[in-house]
Amino acid sequence: MRHPLIFVTDFGRDDTYAAALIGAAWAVDPQARCVDGTHGVPPGNVLAGAYHLKALALAFEPPVVFCAVVDPGVGTARRAIAIETDGVVCVAPDNGLISYLWEETPAGLRRAVELEIPEQASTTFHGRDVFAPVAAQLASGSSLDDAGVPIDDPIVLSEAFAQRSAGRLSGRVAVVDHFGNAITIIRDVDLAGSPVLRAGWSGGETSVSVATYDQIGDGLAVLIGSAGHLEIAARGVASATLGGPSLGDAVTVDLP
Amino acid sequence: MRHPLIFVTDFGRDDTYAAALIGAAWAVDPQARCVDGTHGVPPGNVLAGAYHLKALALAFEPPVVFCAVVDPGVGTARRAIAIETDGVVCVAPDNGLISYLWEETPAGLRRAVELEIPEQASTTFHGRDVFAPVAAQLASGSSLDDAGVPIDDPIVLSEAFAQRSAGRLSGRVAVVDHFGNAITIIRDVDLAGSPVLRAGWSGGETSVSVATYDQIGDGLAVLIGSAGHLEIAARGVASATLGGPSLGDAVTVDLP
Amino acid sequence: MRHPLIFVTDFGRDDTYAAALIGAAWAVDPQARCVDGTHGVPPGNVLAGAYHLKALALAFEPPVVFCAVVDPGVGTARRAIAIETDGVVCVAPDNGLISYLWEETPAGLRRAVELEIPEQASTTFHGRDVFAPVAAQLASGSSLDDAGVPIDDPIVLSEAFAQRSAGRLSGRVAVVDHFGNAITIIRDVDLAGSPVLRAGWSGGETSVSVATYDQIGDGLAVLIGSAGHLEIAARGVASATLGGPSLGDAVTVDLP
Repeated sequence: MRHPLIFVTDFGRDDTYAAALIGAAWAVDPQARCVDGTHGVPPGNVLAGAYHLKALALAFEPPVVFCAVVDPGVGTARRAIAIETDGVVCVAPDNGLISYLWEETPAGLRRAVELEIPEQASTTFHGRDVFAPVAAQLASGSSLDDAGVPIDDPIVLSEAFAQRSAGRLSGRVAVVDHFGNAITIIRDVDLAGSPVLRAGWSGGETSVSVATYDQIGDGLAVLIGSAGHLEIAARGVASATLGGPSLGDAVTVDLP
Repeated sequence: MRHPLIFVTDFGRDDTYAAALIGAAWAVDPQARCVDGTHGVPPGNVLAGAYHLKALALAFEPPVVFCAVVDPGVGTARRAIAIETDGVVCVAPDNGLISYLWEETPAGLRRAVELEIPEQASTTFHGRDVFAPVAAQLASGSSLDDAGVPIDDPIVLSEAFAQRSAGRLSGRVAVVDHFGNAITIIRDVDLAGSPVLRAGWSGGETSVSVATYDQIGDGLAVLIGSAGHLEIAARGVASATLGGPSLGDAVTVDLP
Repeated sequence: MRHPLIFVTDFGRDDTYAAALIGAAWAVDPQARCVDGTHGVPPGNVLAGAYHLKALALAFEPPVVFCAVVDPGVGTARRAIAIETDGVVCVAPDNGLISYLWEETPAGLRRAVELEIPEQASTTFHGRDVFAPVAAQLASGSSLDDAGVPIDDPIVLSEAFAQRSAGRLSGRVAVVDHFGNAITIIRDVDLAGSPVLRAGWSGGETSVSVATYDQIGDGLAVLIGSAGHLEIAARGVASATLGGPSLGDAVTVDLP
């Protein structure tokens, strides 16, 4: 059976760009098992796309293939790549979208190739003309080795990982989700078991740390979300309505 | 062939929570036939979710399996349940989501079980860890009897059903749809063939009753929508722009 | 294998109307291969629906079947039709939705039939009761000849095609996409290889013409998008934020 072929883009769903990826995949393999992972990445926001790719890789059992298209550099000289990380394949522009997939996989279990960009590809829609066709081939079982030339330096976003200084972790909000939870780049592995004494951002802070949304009281709290990232949340309302941070805002976490 | 497995949630579509349900279902049965029923239930709005479940049960031929996740109580002691109503199976938190499915099925044709919540389930995402896996098993043909322990008292929302007093029916707006139609909990069976003399709400009313959207004139009108519920509608614009009621507003209907 | 069955509607995705089309298709053929082309056509906007149908027909290899429902006239005397244009089948209300599919296909390669509207069809939801069932039959291989009575005059929107006067093309904005690009009805075939000297609209203009989004500088530019239509775009922001035209606005293009 084919591997699932999961799309992650900033295309939204109100145009036809998302469905056009399915058309391009089916032109290669009419039985490709296409899934809309999300098309809700904020336009051009590579960091948010990287987070969503990580969350989906946790949600599907490998082998799976992702086709990730958040591509503000389409038509320029940026590379097109495909990576494999322990059973998870991802085809994407080389702009940092694979940051979490790549960095969180041991070096011996990951590899990358640079894709050739066909001469007849449009200059405006590489999702359709480059990424989806290659992803469909990989999802139907073809090898990463046949997809391109090996590389060892896919771009990884430094801003996707927390900075540690004394007892403080520094990061930012990568995603504000549908419920208004502000999901940061700071991870449970960064905390390494330490409790959070205080999370702060421009104009706000909280010292409340909980395990479930229901335990949040009237104010803001931090908890570890379903993908292992620290988020600032409120109960039943968007955290921003109580002064929580916005997308992209810097967040610091004080540890004991 | 598998039964369709239809998701109804308040997750929105811009994150990865909706696709994560497919991942969890495919972990149980890689050939599960997943359908996005809707992920547009307003966050935490159980009544709207109950209405959408009813509408979808009318739209698909049984047997079908629903996985419904509008779950503000996730992580608390609320039960997880599965019900079967005349060929329609629904897995959901026990908070009233199944109100219409349950109440509109004769007692002899419905049954319910309480699901066991696995110890390793997260405290924040029972959709992925509890509901989707059970729904996938049921959609692949396993029996409700094997899913849990029989119960006979799933929670039914009293607010989902109209109150009758003399010649007046009282209810509320359950859903405002994409076209701005205000769909109430008042049903054609509640009217029992009576014409509507007047529908009223805080700050507005209409005495116009029509059969099709095209028959609506310049003002507001009531009609029976495709799921058998009375709605307040305008032609070509959202009813609210002409003073129609908002989500959750009380609505009364006067009968002869 | 079944042909893909692709839905194009103005239903949005937050209700259950979109999924109800899948239910209606599966009632006819449980193995129908349903695809959400887009449900983001602005409510009642037939011209935008016609553009999206064209874009999707370019994105999928024929044979494919479209079920298009942008249907402000539902319940009135408007005809229901199905057309076939060189391997692309489309079932739709006869209101101009098929304008580009029809007009851009040579006369010898296109045909149309009028569908019978079943007596038991609702007056509010022909997508479910008329269009989706017929589309499912056609996608499973049944012939257009069996779907209805031949006609030769499906409605084509004159506003979907540019007017030429001396060195000027006149049209309008058909779609503003998720990235804020204002896509017009003016096509590369209308330009016939001529460069664009100037594009103008009420309150704005640009003389910059580019091939890729990345080549756009700080202001507005025109380029030919992935479906062959001229669009007014900005780099990294919606064109409207820099004074670009809005949905429906008149646009003129001056040629040498």
